[in-house]
Amino acid sequence: MSTKGSVVLAYSGSLDTSCTLLWLKEQGYDVIAYLANIGQKEDFEEARKNALKFGAKKVFIEDVGREFVEEFIWPAIQSSALPCIACKQMEITQWKGAKYMSHSTTGNGNNQVRFELICYSLAPQIKVIAPWRMPKFYNQLKGRNDLMEYAKQHRIPIPVTPKNSWSMDENLMHISYEAGIPENPKNQDPAKAPNTPDILEIEFKKGVPVKVTNVKDGTTHQTSLELFMYLNEVVGKQGVGCIDIMENCFIGMKSRGIYQAPASTILYLAHLDTKAFTMDQEVRKIKQGLGLKFVELVDTGFWYSPECEFVCHCIAKSQEQVEGKVQVSVLEGQVYILGQESPLSLYKEEPVSMNAQGDYQPIDATGFININSLRLKEYHRLQSKVTAK
Amino acid sequence: MSTKGSVVLAYSGSLDTSCTLLWLKEQGYDVIAYLANIGQKEDFEEARKNALKFGAKKVFIEDVGREFVEEFIWPAIQSSALPCIACKQMEITQWKGAKYMSHSTTGNGNNQVRFELICYSLAPQIKVIAPWRMPKFYNQLKGRNDLMEYAKQHRIPIPVTPKNSWSMDENLMHISYEAGIPENPKNQDPAKAPNTPDILEIEFKKGVPVKVTNVKDGTTHQTSLELFMYLNEVVGKQGVGCIDIMENCFIGMKSRGIYQAPASTILYLAHLDTKAFTMDQEVRKIKQGLGLKFVELVDTGFWYSPECEFVCHCIAKSQEQVEGKVQVSVLEGQVYILGQESPLSLYKEEPVSMNAQGDYQPIDATGFININSLRLKEYHRLQSKVTAK
Amino acid sequence: MSTKGSVVLAYSGSLDTSCTLLWLKEQGYDVIAYLANIGQKEDFEEARKNALKFGAKKVFIEDVGREFVEEFIWPAIQSSALPCIACKQMEITQWKGAKYMSHSTTGNGNNQVRFELICYSLAPQIKVIAPWRMPKFYNQLKGRNDLMEYAKQHRIPIPVTPKNSWSMDENLMHISYEAGIPENPKNQDPAKAPNTPDILEIEFKKGVPVKVTNVKDGTTHQTSLELFMYLNEVVGKQGVGCIDIMENCFIGMKSRGIYQAPASTILYLAHLDTKAFTMDQEVRKIKQGLGLKFVELVDTGFWYSPECEFVCHCIAKSQEQVEGKVQVSVLEGQVYILGQESPLSLYKEEPVSMNAQGDYQPIDATGFININSLRLKEYHRLQSKVTAK
Amino acid sequence: MSTKGSVVLAYSGSLDTSCTLLWLKEQGYDVIAYLANIGQKEDFEEARKNALKFGAKKVFIEDVGREFVEEFIWPAIQSSALPCIACKQMEITQWKGAKYMSHSTTGNGNNQVRFELICYSLAPQIKVIAPWRMPKFYNQLKGRNDLMEYAKQHRIPIPVTPKNSWSMDENLMHISYEAGIPENPKNQDPAKAPNTPDILEIEFKKGVPVKVTNVKDGTTHQTSLELFMYLNEVVGKQGVGCIDIMENCFIGMKSRGIYQAPASTILYLAHLDTKAFTMDQEVRKIKQGLGLKFVELVDTGFWYSPECEFVCHCIAKSQEQVEGKVQVSVLEGQVYILGQESPLSLYKEEPVSMNAQGDYQPIDATGFININSLRLKEYHRLQSKVTAK
Repeated sequence: MSTKGSVVLAYSGSLDTSCTLLWLKEQGYDVIAYLANIGQKEDFEEARKNALKFGAKKVFIEDVGREFVEEFIWPAIQSSALPCIACKQMEITQWKGAKYMSHSTTGNGNNQVRFELICYSLAPQIKVIAPWRMPKFYNQLKGRNDLMEYAKQHRIPIPVTPKNSWSMDENLMHISYEAGIPENPKNQDPAKAPNTPDILEIEFKKGVPVKVTNVKDGTTHQTSLELFMYLNEVVGKQGVGCIDIMENCFIGMKSRGIYQAPASTILYLAHLDTKAFTMDQEVRKIKQGLGLKFVELVDTGFWYSPECEFVCHCIAKSQEQVEGKVQVSVLEGQVYILGQESPLSLYKEEPVSMNAQGDYQPIDATGFININSLRLKEYHRLQSKVTAK
Repeated sequence: MSTKGSVVLAYSGSLDTSCTLLWLKEQGYDVIAYLANIGQKEDFEEARKNALKFGAKKVFIEDVGREFVEEFIWPAIQSSALPCIACKQMEITQWKGAKYMSHSTTGNGNNQVRFELICYSLAPQIKVIAPWRMPKFYNQLKGRNDLMEYAKQHRIPIPVTPKNSWSMDENLMHISYEAGIPENPKNQDPAKAPNTPDILEIEFKKGVPVKVTNVKDGTTHQTSLELFMYLNEVVGKQGVGCIDIMENCFIGMKSRGIYQAPASTILYLAHLDTKAFTMDQEVRKIKQGLGLKFVELVDTGFWYSPECEFVCHCIAKSQEQVEGKVQVSVLEGQVYILGQESPLSLYKEEPVSMNAQGDYQPIDATGFININSLRLKEYHRLQSKVTAK
Repeated sequence: MSTKGSVVLAYSGSLDTSCTLLWLKEQGYDVIAYLANIGQKEDFEEARKNALKFGAKKVFIEDVGREFVEEFIWPAIQSSALPCIACKQMEITQWKGAKYMSHSTTGNGNNQVRFELICYSLAPQIKVIAPWRMPKFYNQLKGRNDLMEYAKQHRIPIPVTPKNSWSMDENLMHISYEAGIPENPKNQDPAKAPNTPDILEIEFKKGVPVKVTNVKDGTTHQTSLELFMYLNEVVGKQGVGCIDIMENCFIGMKSRGIYQAPASTILYLAHLDTKAFTMDQEVRKIKQGLGLKFVELVDTGFWYSPECEFVCHCIAKSQEQVEGKVQVSVLEGQVYILGQESPLSLYKEEPVSMNAQGDYQPIDATGFININSLRLKEYHRLQSKVTAK
Repeated sequence: MSTKGSVVLAYSGSLDTSCTLLWLKEQGYDVIAYLANIGQKEDFEEARKNALKFGAKKVFIEDVGREFVEEFIWPAIQSSALPCIACKQMEITQWKGAKYMSHSTTGNGNNQVRFELICYSLAPQIKVIAPWRMPKFYNQLKGRNDLMEYAKQHRIPIPVTPKNSWSMDENLMHISYEAGIPENPKNQDPAKAPNTPDILEIEFKKGVPVKVTNVKDGTTHQTSLELFMYLNEVVGKQGVGCIDIMENCFIGMKSRGIYQAPASTILYLAHLDTKAFTMDQEVRKIKQGLGLKFVELVDTGFWYSPECEFVCHCIAKSQEQVEGKVQVSVLEGQVYILGQESPLSLYKEEPVSMNAQGDYQPIDATGFININSLRLKEYHRLQSKVTAK
């Protein structure tokens, strides 16, 4: 029997994606289920079996953790961006050649925008099929109840705990909670947190972490994925990295999101400190504006736009001198910077070298202040004249 | 005996200011010692006695806490500026009419620049006498030892604990440590922190805190100075507000500063949350750039410049809708936002009202995404052509 | 016979709007034709007759020139924006109460976006009917030929000279050409331009022109609309104000536009000069970024957005000191600034007053330069060390 | 007889530099006179003879035109900076190894700041001797009369026409006037301008001009210096490039400058047009901010600062696609863009390709507009509620 062609579906094994898979098949498509393993807690083999059971022609499961960390998280760290970018993207980059792609992202959030803009950038010829925005789909499956009914009919397993509305896609960036998602992640039991601090040394080169050392036991990790996963584990146990942000949706609404992103958080702080020591203050100011732009672009799905490529290039350039080792102590939700060292440090405890070289005399400060005050004096004199009238 | 005239000296009672007082007198000035009480831990009566003993003609001690909070801290909160601005400024604003002003700020930091630029702005005709940059002074008193010797000769009391190099001027903004400054404020004894969280409700109008309620015991504070001092006390006890920053000095050096600013920190966070709920996302982006500028201007002493007046005006304008109540829980160094409510909230849990009004259809998202993707598609098509050559 | 209700159509008398009027009527709407007179060369009575002939229930013609100048052009001048904003907007502001609005703007340009976003801002409950994007309309009238045929059938007069694709809506801002639009407005006959320069004095208060004087004959104009029209006439005759811009369409395309905007151009230049004399340099830099934002917002239709209101407020604030008289000479396409005077001028030919007040000593420049060089020296020393490795 | 050592003096042959040379020699320095030939109208051999006559130990005259064009003017063109940067810089870059450098720039302008900051950047160990800021010098030579007297005593030739106060250093960038500087360069005799337009084709690669063709006579120039000089000549004859700017001095004063910079002006315009056709609109917006920063940095002498290196790198990156040919017509002070072509053009006359590829449907515009209007509708609804209270 001839079909409408093949569609690659970003499949996660969830109720939503399973129903979408089935529905696409009912519409006459050959469905290729694709799972990108980006560190989410998932029974991948179970997902594979289910996908096949619900009618997928093929199932691909790919481990893209390293690409995810290097291509998406490192630039965010360099930009001093709070690490909350969405991560559906990896599902796409692997499937540039497809004719159709599909996802089961529902209608109001930014995820669908990011997914599709990245799709169209990487593969301008692709067509995205978004059932959750298609009248045929949403008239048939009008709400949660319809969906459950449809699932029951087709023997799609219904999860015991429904996900909370604020739940994020789990992945390497956002650690997951073991027994379902707690009412409030902030209220997690501190009794389970260790009583002793972990001391970590994080080394940066060109603004990117290249080595993590556990100072107490000497463990080291030097590859991107490993060090990131290690930080997630150690720092996560200490209850660090709870982030509470307000997301501005493309449809103009604001929605609240609470994440736990331990590795990203500690790297963000350590990078900030390394930057403060090694990046020239004026470069930092210019870079700050570019960083804000970067966050905005990622947030709205313009990752593969010309402007984002430009901004990323500039930010990477600004990182060339961001090099050094930071020692941090992590304990019960708190992070303390213990110390810093860098061969490129601009920090000086005393202006000794300057004085030694005769570069600086106290009298210079007088000239500097006087010159800077001239404009201010004139302005205030003029103001009093104007006011006096 | 005729003198060179009167000079108003920003006096704090410290070794440095006492020596400066004496030295100015030796040079033939009538010294008026001025102490601005901005909440620093100080024995003001002791300072008054000393000033007179060392030869001050007059001593003025003024309580300027309210002005300080309203004129300096509120704008910083509105700007989402990290609350580390220096505060010598209050010493000046009260003495616009003087002919000479003096201070004992040493030669390398930004404090002298801020002090003098503000002086010259408020009183363009004034002359600042900065002994610590005058060869006659620094050749006579070449280092710490000379200063101690000079103090001993003139019976100026020498403090038991020398201040650490990183010590800030204490004031309302930065809480002080009771028994001298600990080696590392981060290592303060957590055993002393209370075991139960404090629940506070902070209310904002036009981006400024107007009321603080302790939810447990019902205590409320509604005036600027009182609510600020109350927050310093309660939040400070919980170990919140330790700030570790790198300051870029005007002479190009970086130096590290560690502060504890409990009230500012909690207000900064609560304001951030209120803003996230009530400020339009695009206004917020524009305001963000202005906020960065504000921090830079304050940092470098341009508080009374035309550009700072302009930026402050714009930021205040952006705050008109920043109104609401935030509930926060403070415990052992951590702050949690418990909830938010605002009559001007832009936050919606569901886009219900939109659907009800028929404003939004899922199909619209398709159009929105397609239009946004057109430029990206064209760009990537052109890129592949260029690369293919 | 009952109808679908009333729709207010932005009517211009052109072929396109006439066909749109007719088509809306055929769909069962009562059409109210609305013409905003914003200075376009138009036979308004002819348009009224035609509208009624083609079936309009009512015709309103309103003179909104003054509002247009004050509400749309003055802010652009203050922002130093190149004066090319589109002006359909005035058609809307008068009809906030309608249930439906319609326009005949075709599918690819930014005009439709501006029109509709402004509509929805001013009247969130309104429904816009955009026939040129409705399949029923564009399938029926597929191209220029179908449209001509439809017009012929309904006795809608077809203009002799079809408008060029680059033609703008004429209005007060853009002067029109008398005998149709020439092939290339740049090639207009310079022989017709006067041989002698016109000398004009333009006076600004708060960044807005308040008086124009023809220095030779003493003519003065002091109201917004009059002075604007007078400048269009005089300066237009001298061939000034030809603007060649590249517009970035919302659908990602770029298109070229050539306008003649004499009054806007001369005011832009005179304002720039007044600003250079009276606005503090640091305020100017901050305002520059806001001006760029303003242009972007206007260009994309976000005139009545919260961010545009915010930016406009800030820009207006920056104009408080922009006051003075500029003398300009206009001749054969060129504008020369002859002179400037302002009670608020910051310009000084000699730093005499400064020296007189003893504010400035040459030695101060040495200190200023030394301090500024410290960071650069350190940077280059570090660079050579790094490179030397 | 032993001396204080060698000092390299930026020598121009003018009265000021000659007096400075002599004075430095009187102070006991061996003076090395250095003339950088950057295209200024100068009798270099006469200058050499004079320098030796007034006591220079050595005289170096170097032709640095190409370096000047490529290192200073090209980045300005790429930044869309108005081409008025000062050019003393070239005098320095050749003399990094010296122990002392000196200049005769007087006390109030920005030139001295630029000269010295660049000195200190390129050679952190250097000492700058600025006689015009040294009390010994300015007390001895108190004004113009003292200087003339001093010159007469030492047989330094006094020029017939004293330079106007607004005169700039002549160089490649600013063309000079043949018979002294006219009262007002704007009033130059238009009768001398050719009656026929020159048609030039300018080709850009990576944002830099690589070829200039005179379309009428077929002349072409392909090297940086040659094409720049050719444009100066041809475009200068047509009276193009008169620039009237207000410079903000470091001491807070504003001063007016009038220049003629024909080549820079035409390149600025041609580059702008090429950029408009080939640079993505969002990249352009980000680059715009960086361009403003670049102008500020150059203006204040921070050419060799880390931030300027950063900004230049980013701007160069943004130029990678700025490629194409622009045809311009130049006549009697006016420049017209005749046409554009580029293999990387983003300009499309019709969105044909888009339609052909099915990328764009009119209905998409509706979705796009609706989504964009949601935030605006909500905002205005909330506003009316707030106002209604």
